[in-house]
Amino acid sequence: MDKLWKMNLRDIDPYVPGEQSKDKNIVKLNANENPYPPSPKAIEAINSFNCDGLRLYPDANASAFKQAMAEYYNVQPQNVFLGNGSDDVLALCFQAFFNSDKSIVFPDITYSFYPVWCRLFNIPFKNYPLNDDFRINVDDYAEENGGVVIPNPNAPTSLGEGKDFIEKLMKYNQDCIVIIDEAYVDFGCYSGVELTKKYENLIITGTFSKSRSLAGLRIGYAIGNKELIAVLEAVKNSYNSYTVDSVSMAAGTASIKDKKYFEETVSKVITTRESVIKELRALGFTALDSQTNFIFATHDSMNMRDYFEWLKTQKVFIRYFNLPRIDNHVRITVGTDEEMDIFLKKTKEYLNK
Amino acid sequence: MDKLWKMNLRDIDPYVPGEQSKDKNIVKLNANENPYPPSPKAIEAINSFNCDGLRLYPDANASAFKQAMAEYYNVQPQNVFLGNGSDDVLALCFQAFFNSDKSIVFPDITYSFYPVWCRLFNIPFKNYPLNDDFRINVDDYAEENGGVVIPNPNAPTSLGEGKDFIEKLMKYNQDCIVIIDEAYVDFGCYSGVELTKKYENLIITGTFSKSRSLAGLRIGYAIGNKELIAVLEAVKNSYNSYTVDSVSMAAGTASIKDKKYFEETVSKVITTRESVIKELRALGFTALDSQTNFIFATHDSMNMRDYFEWLKTQKVFIRYFNLPRIDNHVRITVGTDEEMDIFLKKTKEYLNK
Repeated sequence: MDKLWKMNLRDIDPYVPGEQSKDKNIVKLNANENPYPPSPKAIEAINSFNCDGLRLYPDANASAFKQAMAEYYNVQPQNVFLGNGSDDVLALCFQAFFNSDKSIVFPDITYSFYPVWCRLFNIPFKNYPLNDDFRINVDDYAEENGGVVIPNPNAPTSLGEGKDFIEKLMKYNQDCIVIIDEAYVDFGCYSGVELTKKYENLIITGTFSKSRSLAGLRIGYAIGNKELIAVLEAVKNSYNSYTVDSVSMAAGTASIKDKKYFEETVSKVITTRESVIKELRALGFTALDSQTNFIFATHDSMNMRDYFEWLKTQKVFIRYFNLPRIDNHVRITVGTDEEMDIFLKKTKEYLNK
Repeated sequence: MDKLWKMNLRDIDPYVPGEQSKDKNIVKLNANENPYPPSPKAIEAINSFNCDGLRLYPDANASAFKQAMAEYYNVQPQNVFLGNGSDDVLALCFQAFFNSDKSIVFPDITYSFYPVWCRLFNIPFKNYPLNDDFRINVDDYAEENGGVVIPNPNAPTSLGEGKDFIEKLMKYNQDCIVIIDEAYVDFGCYSGVELTKKYENLIITGTFSKSRSLAGLRIGYAIGNKELIAVLEAVKNSYNSYTVDSVSMAAGTASIKDKKYFEETVSKVITTRESVIKELRALGFTALDSQTNFIFATHDSMNMRDYFEWLKTQKVFIRYFNLPRIDNHVRITVGTDEEMDIFLKKTKEYLNK
């Protein structure tokens, strides 16, 4: 018989994060990482950090960082929550806000962590299929539910929705908490942050990992009305009071204050993205209109899995999902112009084979 | 009527972390922080960190850091788990290992987060009172239970237990997971890490916040058999794949490799502690034998709460717990010799009032 103590182990499917290649020569377009380094101000904050102070615990309330966030987003510090990456923030939101017996709802094709957190925290959930054009049908969300979570723009489809969509969603959902996950919003999509002042049951989450090139530091945030943020803080403080470390706070604060560098790099990514989408379409690809730092594409006469696998042999890494409805699509992160030139050259090579 | 969406909020008592004073002139002996800076090697790792790489996600498996930990603790990398401070590691352990219908058990006087996590994760729990001398009675733990968590040394009592205690505890508890929380172990207590090779249901947790002066960075760990670590990784990866950031990993790796500095600073804290305990006893205090970086003390003819409050007016911060059985005790963190001289001078002043 098996040992009795094994009965007490959590029975969970191991979610295995994608392995990062050690090879420095690959063109890495598989993790939606930013091709540009973080703000020089953020780098300076780390490399000149007074490390003697690390013997002390961080400021659990992250006051200075929250102040800088509040100024940037035109809200009050009490409207801002900070966490260890937006996965930490979203996981805490699920625990804080999804405590109904009714199912929470989200699209069938979306961020893969949502069902994982539902299973971890025993939250019932239900999916609404995206339309055939991969758009979210907002009218699906008029049904009674235990909460809503929608990424805007959605991933991996890259499609963003505007203010009218969110207003409609909020009109349908007045009795539950609505989370809009804005991980990619800075790349040209409408942000609902201003609407948190109008809808007190709306919470916006975001990350410094994409548009701010700080994936390696783990900074995520939520913005919403004071009451929601207080519940989120209470849950966080019941889990781990000090999730954002002192060095990350210093770098995050420097990054959010450096608006100029942020706008320049985001704009470079957008310019590259538009030019690559145009080239892909000229090559016969169907590429959705992207408001993110990635491109979601397919090609009528190609097996996208084979294409993905072949690119890997050429040291160009993109992303393929072996999932219903999107198993002949790929997701391509927008890199530098030089990286995208290699990607396009290899793509042409594949098409001419 | 209250808004319906409020029904979905998590109903939780806000656990409010202690506020850090902004005043640089206080003698801060209230948070068990180390008075010495982190290893110069750890500081160098941060201040010379190649921050361009922060645009990429951290290594979710923390391979290099785990390798260094394995070498230090004489185990394999697969026996090591890393997290965002030991609170994160312990919270994940509670979710991973305490899934029985039976109550988990821990002492009545112990780390205050244990009951908080039990409530957060709906884990039933039961306390066994410490003996009158504040020792844990290991025979209490012979009863059937859903899991055991014990800090060794215990906090805030500062008392540590030896190998025989742990072996007896493991003999009593063969059908559940036993967590030994070794946050303070480096200050002179027996570590059960070697026993994880003998008892496959034993898990040891620890932190870089105390003996390694890295509270500001958030690094915690667990050591145990491969199967337990794999379950812990599965739960972690279902919550947030990237809890330890790239800068923290680099600093943690440098710290664990710098054995000499570690031993020197730990030894300084121990020397100061022993001398302060001697002086306090000479002043009529009852101070327990400490195997930690703090002193747990009372005085027959003193109201310890008044003493604590008065010290605060003198800019000397120690810790007072308004809790049953220990409400006439204080916890004093061991600072530098200079800080402890001020503390003792003020204490004599108070006694002579």
